[in-house]
Amino acid sequence: MLRRYDGNPIVRREDVQPSRKDFRVYGVFNCGAVKVAGEYLLLMRVAERPAAEPGWLSIPVLNEKCDGVEVRRLRTGAPGVDASDPRVVKLADGQLLLTSISHLRLARSRDGRRFTVDEKPALFPATPYERYGVEDPRITLLDGRYWINYSAISEKGVVTALASTADWRAFERHGVMFAPTDKDVCIFPEKIGGLYVCRHRPWAEGLGRAAVWTAFSPDLIHWGGHRHTLSPRPGTWDEERVGCGPPPVKTEHGWLEIYHGANRKGRYCLGAMLAHLKDPTHVLARSIMPVLEPQADYETHGVYAPCVFCNGMVAEDDGTLRIYYGAADTVVACAETMVGEVIESLF
Amino acid sequence: MLRRYDGNPIVRREDVQPSRKDFRVYGVFNCGAVKVAGEYLLLMRVAERPAAEPGWLSIPVLNEKCDGVEVRRLRTGAPGVDASDPRVVKLADGQLLLTSISHLRLARSRDGRRFTVDEKPALFPATPYERYGVEDPRITLLDGRYWINYSAISEKGVVTALASTADWRAFERHGVMFAPTDKDVCIFPEKIGGLYVCRHRPWAEGLGRAAVWTAFSPDLIHWGGHRHTLSPRPGTWDEERVGCGPPPVKTEHGWLEIYHGANRKGRYCLGAMLAHLKDPTHVLARSIMPVLEPQADYETHGVYAPCVFCNGMVAEDDGTLRIYYGAADTVVACAETMVGEVIESLF
Repeated sequence: MLRRYDGNPIVRREDVQPSRKDFRVYGVFNCGAVKVAGEYLLLMRVAERPAAEPGWLSIPVLNEKCDGVEVRRLRTGAPGVDASDPRVVKLADGQLLLTSISHLRLARSRDGRRFTVDEKPALFPATPYERYGVEDPRITLLDGRYWINYSAISEKGVVTALASTADWRAFERHGVMFAPTDKDVCIFPEKIGGLYVCRHRPWAEGLGRAAVWTAFSPDLIHWGGHRHTLSPRPGTWDEERVGCGPPPVKTEHGWLEIYHGANRKGRYCLGAMLAHLKDPTHVLARSIMPVLEPQADYETHGVYAPCVFCNGMVAEDDGTLRIYYGAADTVVACAETMVGEVIESLF
Repeated sequence: MLRRYDGNPIVRREDVQPSRKDFRVYGVFNCGAVKVAGEYLLLMRVAERPAAEPGWLSIPVLNEKCDGVEVRRLRTGAPGVDASDPRVVKLADGQLLLTSISHLRLARSRDGRRFTVDEKPALFPATPYERYGVEDPRITLLDGRYWINYSAISEKGVVTALASTADWRAFERHGVMFAPTDKDVCIFPEKIGGLYVCRHRPWAEGLGRAAVWTAFSPDLIHWGGHRHTLSPRPGTWDEERVGCGPPPVKTEHGWLEIYHGANRKGRYCLGAMLAHLKDPTHVLARSIMPVLEPQADYETHGVYAPCVFCNGMVAEDDGTLRIYYGAADTVVACAETMVGEVIESLF
């Protein structure tokens, strides 16, 4: 039902200049998406790492002053250093370090297909909660301002932070929306019952699963009224974890959402769900089978694969949905469908 | 510095009537505490379980309608059923069940030492988020109302929920304050900078530790502005996790708090901390050594030991602190000290 663009991937690593000369772009993927005055904007996650040095692991971290990235070096194979996952280094005391640091970068297009990538980052790590990077933004237009929530990573954990912009030049930060471990947040494009609404994916340790919850806010800063909304389904493609994607699209049948799910093997697919317009915690329908699974080569080979992950979508006036997604944590791709097709598939 | 009461434990299992005849009280422990018109109230966690039946594990769970507890029975030693921890049953699919269900029960005293336990529960599990029980309440008096936050446990995870009462007879529920996994919440007894303030202990998975965070609210329902506040200290008594205890006590030197910490062996001790009056995320001082460690027999033997855990404290006008604490997840005990003594110990 989703038709991949012929030109996929639409943004590749080689299309992105690293933020400094001694860094290499490791992946450009999960992007927020929005259409502003006819222009398509993608706010992409760009993961960078220092150029490889044989015998050393290089760990890029925002420095204590939060005004620049420093590189920590560890001997490869040093005792207690586990680098078996190329994205992560695990130390003997259980501490985790990341081998790349992500920032958010804009790409622009007039047709939604051919994008030009900005030379400089839009949002670069700059707070103590962002020392290991900023990731996976979602964009919601509310009250004339673009609200950007994103994962902020540090030794304190994975939190969701909030920023906003009116002009896509100046960005204002609004602090931490949700404490660790909480990600995959999307804010609804309008208030419901007088409150702002979002989905989030808190991590449930021991009891509970990696499920989607809904929360409410009078001001976008303070959130409460948490309600459990969507669970993984044992034995299916989304048995291990689920998390929401881009902000929901309002349709006459309900709030239409694209979410991601992973199975026990860590294979990420996309599904769709439809929620009640007035009570968004009430899920009316949900994909039995994925609407998109990793099948193309750029989805099944890369930094982390097989994986498709969506946090940006543009709904056109004619009912076309442009679904921008990260493939294999390596590139940005796009697939198209119609709102009506997705809803039909749910019933 | 903390002087245990001679009469410890002050509430024992045999002092508590189970909520129904076929249940046994497994533990009466972690209690909120407050002094109301000269009377000391403890809001205690009472863990109950069905009477033992040889060959069966009995799992008490609030039923689907949330109007009564049903007992699920599993064969002892059935394949895939791990009951090696007497408090928990782990199924083959990773699902956890609890072998007891907790409610909150009041005990009353005129002298703060000899308590009479109510015959009936004060707050009994009654929502889908409370199907496995309600635990570890903290009590804060604000605007003439007593606010009670507590851990609500279900198959959806461990959340913090909020209730309130004006008269300790009628209780009103206010939903979920923090999504999973988040507990050890305490609400400050006054607004700071125009906002309500609380500590909480979100669970950080992978990156991050079980640390104390601070959050802010305009209305006690919606919380945000999360700030990392207190971490475990590697190699010490609180190396594995820390969590706050009763609401802070205001002193001229700062907010005085009792918190708990556990080491890697899971031994729970109490510590003290002092935070800036105007910026409670700024910790001025913190116990190097515990202010209370499990040493008495009732602290080192019981359902979970060694363990002392405090979520209730009464500050008297003369500077006396009565620290009510759960010992070994089995009984309630009390220890006394002076505010000045604790603060002196921190410097």
